[in-house]
Amino acid sequence: MDRPRFPARPFEPFAQEEYLARVERARAEMDRRRLDALVITTELNFRYFSGFDSQTWVSPTRPFYLVVPASAPLHAIIPTGSLVVMRETSWVEDIRTWPAPVPEDDGITLLADAIRALPRRHGGVGFELGHEMHLRMPVTDFLRLRDLVGPVELTDGTPVTRRLRMIKSPGEIARIRNAAHIVCDAFATLAAQFGPGDSERDACLRLTIDILRRGADRSPYLVAASGPGGYETINIGPTDRRLQAGDIFIIDTGTVVDGYFCDFDRNFAVGAAPSDTVRRLDAALFDATEAALAFAAPGVTCHDIWLTMARSLGEEAVRDSDVGRMGHGLGLAVTEPPSIHPADATVLEPGMVLTLEPGIGFRGPDGRKKVLVHEENFVVTETGCELLSKRGARQMPIVG
Amino acid sequence: MDRPRFPARPFEPFAQEEYLARVERARAEMDRRRLDALVITTELNFRYFSGFDSQTWVSPTRPFYLVVPASAPLHAIIPTGSLVVMRETSWVEDIRTWPAPVPEDDGITLLADAIRALPRRHGGVGFELGHEMHLRMPVTDFLRLRDLVGPVELTDGTPVTRRLRMIKSPGEIARIRNAAHIVCDAFATLAAQFGPGDSERDACLRLTIDILRRGADRSPYLVAASGPGGYETINIGPTDRRLQAGDIFIIDTGTVVDGYFCDFDRNFAVGAAPSDTVRRLDAALFDATEAALAFAAPGVTCHDIWLTMARSLGEEAVRDSDVGRMGHGLGLAVTEPPSIHPADATVLEPGMVLTLEPGIGFRGPDGRKKVLVHEENFVVTETGCELLSKRGARQMPIVG
Repeated sequence: MDRPRFPARPFEPFAQEEYLARVERARAEMDRRRLDALVITTELNFRYFSGFDSQTWVSPTRPFYLVVPASAPLHAIIPTGSLVVMRETSWVEDIRTWPAPVPEDDGITLLADAIRALPRRHGGVGFELGHEMHLRMPVTDFLRLRDLVGPVELTDGTPVTRRLRMIKSPGEIARIRNAAHIVCDAFATLAAQFGPGDSERDACLRLTIDILRRGADRSPYLVAASGPGGYETINIGPTDRRLQAGDIFIIDTGTVVDGYFCDFDRNFAVGAAPSDTVRRLDAALFDATEAALAFAAPGVTCHDIWLTMARSLGEEAVRDSDVGRMGHGLGLAVTEPPSIHPADATVLEPGMVLTLEPGIGFRGPDGRKKVLVHEENFVVTETGCELLSKRGARQMPIVG
Repeated sequence: MDRPRFPARPFEPFAQEEYLARVERARAEMDRRRLDALVITTELNFRYFSGFDSQTWVSPTRPFYLVVPASAPLHAIIPTGSLVVMRETSWVEDIRTWPAPVPEDDGITLLADAIRALPRRHGGVGFELGHEMHLRMPVTDFLRLRDLVGPVELTDGTPVTRRLRMIKSPGEIARIRNAAHIVCDAFATLAAQFGPGDSERDACLRLTIDILRRGADRSPYLVAASGPGGYETINIGPTDRRLQAGDIFIIDTGTVVDGYFCDFDRNFAVGAAPSDTVRRLDAALFDATEAALAFAAPGVTCHDIWLTMARSLGEEAVRDSDVGRMGHGLGLAVTEPPSIHPADATVLEPGMVLTLEPGIGFRGPDGRKKVLVHEENFVVTETGCELLSKRGARQMPIVG
């Protein structure tokens, strides 16, 4: 009987120094933005500062609050039921609890007290109110809190956490690289394990199981698409559609290992060599990512990288792809700022981890609109960039 | 080579009638609460009304809006990249798109236009602002929207969706039952597949893989705890701790199949019969759930069910357990209202699906505070209730 064992973990939990360095950077940003504290409500920001690692976030019932003051120790305000996990997984010592759920006061009095007790210098406290973000607490409670804290202004702290999380530490980069290698190895193994007659779901099931056996936490994002001579969209499926010779098949997965995401796709030609068109477009996408990898370096903007890939592909192809952007940041979340998009002027800095995700639209042999997408993950280094995923094949693998 | 296939799905996607019935019920509730529309931003409410089924919600980047008017057709306002998936998975025909992410106007003008164009009767529009809920859009955008829609009052619509989702349709109940049976069968198989020397993670990996092979979407919640003579908390792990003879081991999983959660746990005695204390407490928990299942029926309150279990267990045991509540609703989410809690006066109605989750605190042989928890899932019927999970063993299974 097959009794898989969970592989040894390559990493110890982050040392307290890692969190202290994050808090230090946060405080510098808070000072620039005239904030006396950040209040964190979302899972990944909470984990980023505190290390708190719990699956309880899956349940929408209970709010969690972490106060990161500019000039006082951090404190957590959490449901009593999570106290043991907080003590086990976090370095934060000041933990205040209430027996959630308490509909009439789900931690709000405790939070208001904490905010009122903050050393006051600027008068503003940053919450997660901005773009690509949401506040994980009832808005009615937030509005009530505004009244309770009197003269303290509850403002947008998103720029602080966005800026911080965009620059990864060596430990974070190592984890993303490890995640990417696990998924690359699983993709390589999968290529010999499916073919015509298997459904999209069959292939994804085999990949998912292999990824888990290699030590992943989970694959919260795992989509697949297929079609004769090309697929019509990404970001869908997998479905029960059975693969046929002549199909092009893509799987795209955001997989978490040790808390950090990799996010990339791989394409497969099913049972037959791809058409000349697909071969040509596939090579064009490979060349576009090559161009971007050669170009990406500190000082370059996201806009410039977009332009580099767009020029390599040709404008028409890009316009028809519907992909919208050609890459994004990743880390604790499967998508993070910045965006590789004409409107994003973010300047690359060492430690930024991004995807390259160029796509080309084309007309399939069945007359339908198709798309082909490549994706890789890389980190910006002092002098250029380093691929974190193992480079996809120059020529699309034929399976089955 | 092992090439698992994804099993045939027992259910077709919900027919349009299911969604129309949900909208009909929503409109009756909206009328009672004087709302001209609901605006939905969160994944599960969005799916509940529209059927939209996408993994893109994993990415925090893009907001999605669904407008459910009291007296006009539904419309969705979504990122262009999700248009194909919306058309494929949803019955909603009026779909408006924008090329997200657009930081300066991420769908807000479109949403404001839609709200201003609503037939106005009461003047209020319900958003997801209340307890056990959060708004999945930037709060700054919500505050801006309030200014943009002029005289329309953006108020709390949570009571409407909470009330609706609490009462499950026969199709929803069948899906939860199917999920629970899949996990019960996997737990039963697991009992022969681990023992002393395996880590908590090894056991959870085997269970997770088996659950996936049986056709589950995923197990977003899968925690485990173990210890000599008892574990100290739930809602943690799994860790790399190796199981030893004399341990008590619990796995608790919220697993999704066809979009619907089951959520329950199973306990195992590792390598040896449990102590007399654990045997006695295990029997007491079994009896408490028996008492609750005999008692649960339309007209009974959640408070009454809590009291039934508390009386069965004895007050002291409950006070020491730290569990807080002894069950909760479930469905599209792993935890939903109501709570089986002394303060929850919700009256049971046919179609409500809940967990029973009594716990007992005790002192372990090592002098440490331990807890033992049972959990089952049931649905309220016209005359009483029906177990959805297959009843856990009256005596804790001994493994290894």
